[in-house]
This record gives sequence, structure tokens and C-alpha cells, in this order.
Amino acid sequence: MGKLVADITMSLDGFITGPDDAPGRGLGERGEALHNWVMGGPWRYDQPRRFAPADVDRGVLQEAMGSTGAGIIGRTMFDVTGGWGGSPPGGPDARYFVLTHSVPTEWAGRRSPFTFVTDGIDSALAQARAVAGDKDVGIGGGANVIQQYLAARLIDELRLHLAPVLLGAGKRLFDHLGDQAIELEPTRVIESPHATHLVYTVRR
Amino acid sequence: MGKLVADITMSLDGFITGPDDAPGRGLGERGEALHNWVMGGPWRYDQPRRFAPADVDRGVLQEAMGSTGAGIIGRTMFDVTGGWGGSPPGGPDARYFVLTHSVPTEWAGRRSPFTFVTDGIDSALAQARAVAGDKDVGIGGGANVIQQYLAARLIDELRLHLAPVLLGAGKRLFDHLGDQAIELEPTRVIESPHATHLVYTVRR
Repeated sequence: MGKLVADITMSLDGFITGPDDAPGRGLGERGEALHNWVMGGPWRYDQPRRFAPADVDRGVLQEAMGSTGAGIIGRTMFDVTGGWGGSPPGGPDARYFVLTHSVPTEWAGRRSPFTFVTDGIDSALAQARAVAGDKDVGIGGGANVIQQYLAARLIDELRLHLAPVLLGAGKRLFDHLGDQAIELEPTRVIESPHATHLVYTVRR
Repeated sequence: MGKLVADITMSLDGFITGPDDAPGRGLGERGEALHNWVMGGPWRYDQPRRFAPADVDRGVLQEAMGSTGAGIIGRTMFDVTGGWGGSPPGGPDARYFVLTHSVPTEWAGRRSPFTFVTDGIDSALAQARAVAGDKDVGIGGGANVIQQYLAARLIDELRLHLAPVLLGAGKRLFDHLGDQAIELEPTRVIESPHATHLVYTVRR
């Protein structure tokens, strides 16, 4: 069985989106800066995009893709990305489990990389593990989903891509974690001009 | 003229204290974990302390001490530490400028490393620069003081000691920064089991 890994980009001030993220508005106001490391430099939603990560960042992406056998995401993330038009990151064989209270009607019964899970985080994890086999299960976000798995002490590893920006507002990754410390062990740091990639093992 | 540097320890979830920090309670509930890197491992206020940082962490402390010519701190930090009993970090020649609304009567007119500044952050910075000469001015905290200097775009460099713990509550370092992004350039990372030391230049 692989690890349960939360893998997400966070600004140095703790935000995983800028303010006002929503369908059609991606990561929100100023949120593009979070993904400079993915794109290879500054970019904007309203301008032609390039996908040209620096070698070090491309390596981080490829390694994650190679080690991850299934993904778990929240409904908001699914809606904001529009389900990536049916082609989420990870290639044609990628499988995602979407935590939601109700299955979106336009996707119900449709063949897609997405399985909608309405009976909670344990069920999503069990289904994702069954698909992932020996590979890791990756939680892509949003904050709320990662918080639920963290609070339940189910996450083995945090992979944070720390973007060198203070966004000032947005959705905080680490919030609502309850009144208890969670100890971590730093296991790896990979430096890039666009992000500092931090890997932590969650201590049990 | 040296740089204006904010130098502080932060948990991965963005807190520079645990909950309920106060005079006699140091960094608050669970806050000791922030300074494991300074002490060389887990420690508690209610048990005998050791000061035995790992070599890499000792190097970080010594380098900061060597490059800093004067410090700026807030009144809360001063009160919480009790003015370090008159012997703050930095040795016998260290000089600190304490931002406050009123000079604490028991310190007024007394010879000490502390100068109490009641006329704002620009005044404290000018006085600290005059003392520091070619060396850096270091802002030690608290959060409120760093936030004021950040919002005024006066800080040249952030030196964050990222403690491998999620505290869940406490005082957030990055808060109240206004609705504007502040771009950073990562310039250095130093890894230790007890903290990941991150240095950023603040872009202008």
C-alpha cells in the first residue's frame, strides 16, 4: 500500500488561492503567482499561457505523477477547474475521486476519470487505495479536503510547493485543524526560483 | 547601510506562537516546538532547559548575530520575555528599539540595552539604523511589528525559520497585510531536522 500524500501549492503566507477563486476565475485574484513554478514564470489567466517549467520543477511534477496511483479532490476544486474539461493532470489513465454531497447531473453516468463519492473521506480513501495499488494516493485539494484528512490523522506525507509570494488573502491551507499540534519531520527540500518544494512526513 | 531584515520562527501553518502566549507563558501552549531548532530538540518551559543547537542551526544563529547591528521588537514581545531580564540575545553590546505606546515605568531612565520608541516605526528604524551602521537591522517580532514594516514596504529580507509542526492556533505572522501581493525572491535554504531556514528578498 502506498502513502496518502497531500500535494499542493501554498503561498508563503499560507494561501492556496488568492481572493475570489471560483469557476472561470481559477485560483482567484493574484492566484496565478502560485503556479509560476508550473508554468515556468509569471503568467495570467487572461493572456496566452505557456507550460514551460524549469527542469527542477518539471522533475517535481513528473516524480509526483509517477508515484501517484489515484487522486482525491474536493467538489469546489472540481467545479473551479470544470473537471479540467474531462482531462485532469496525470494523463489518460489518471483516476480521481471527488468528494461531494451530490453528483453533478451533467457528469452522472458519464465515462470519465472522475468517481463522485458522497459517503465521506474514509470511503473516498478506500476506493482510491483500491485503484492505486502500491502507488500513492494524492490529495490535490482544496484546503477543506486536506484539512479533513489531516484532522483525521490519515495523511502520511505533505508535499508543499511554497510559492515565493505573500498573497494577503484567499483560502488558507492550514485552518480549522483543532486545538492540537501535529508534528512533522522534514524529509526533503528542493529549491527552484519559482517555489521551494518541501516534503514532510506526518508523525504519528 | 545594511538591510532591514525580519527574522523569526514560524510553524508550517503560519504561527509564531501557540495559543495563550503571555508574560510567564512564553510562546504559549505548545509553542516550545517552534524553538526546538534553537534548543537542539524538544524542550518544555516547565522542565530544565538545555541550549544545544545542532551545528547547522548554531551556524544560522551565529550568522544572524554577526550581521545584525541593532534590533527592533514590539512591546508585547518585550513584555512576554520580561526584557530577557535585561540580557537579550546578541550579547552585552546588543541594542534593541522597543516600539511601544508608553515607556514601562520600571525601565524609564534605567541603563539597559533597550530604547523605548513611542513615535512610530519610521522613528524606530531611523534610530536602529544609526546604531547599526553598516550592519543589518533585525526585526525580531512580534507579528504585529513585522506586519507594519511589511505593509510599509520597508523590509528588504525575510529570514524565516520554518518549524516542522502544525500548531493549529496562535498568532499568525502573515495577517492584516492588505489586499495586495508582495513578491519575494527565494535566495537561500538551509535544512536542519528541527527547522527549514528560508531566506527571501522582498521585491520592490
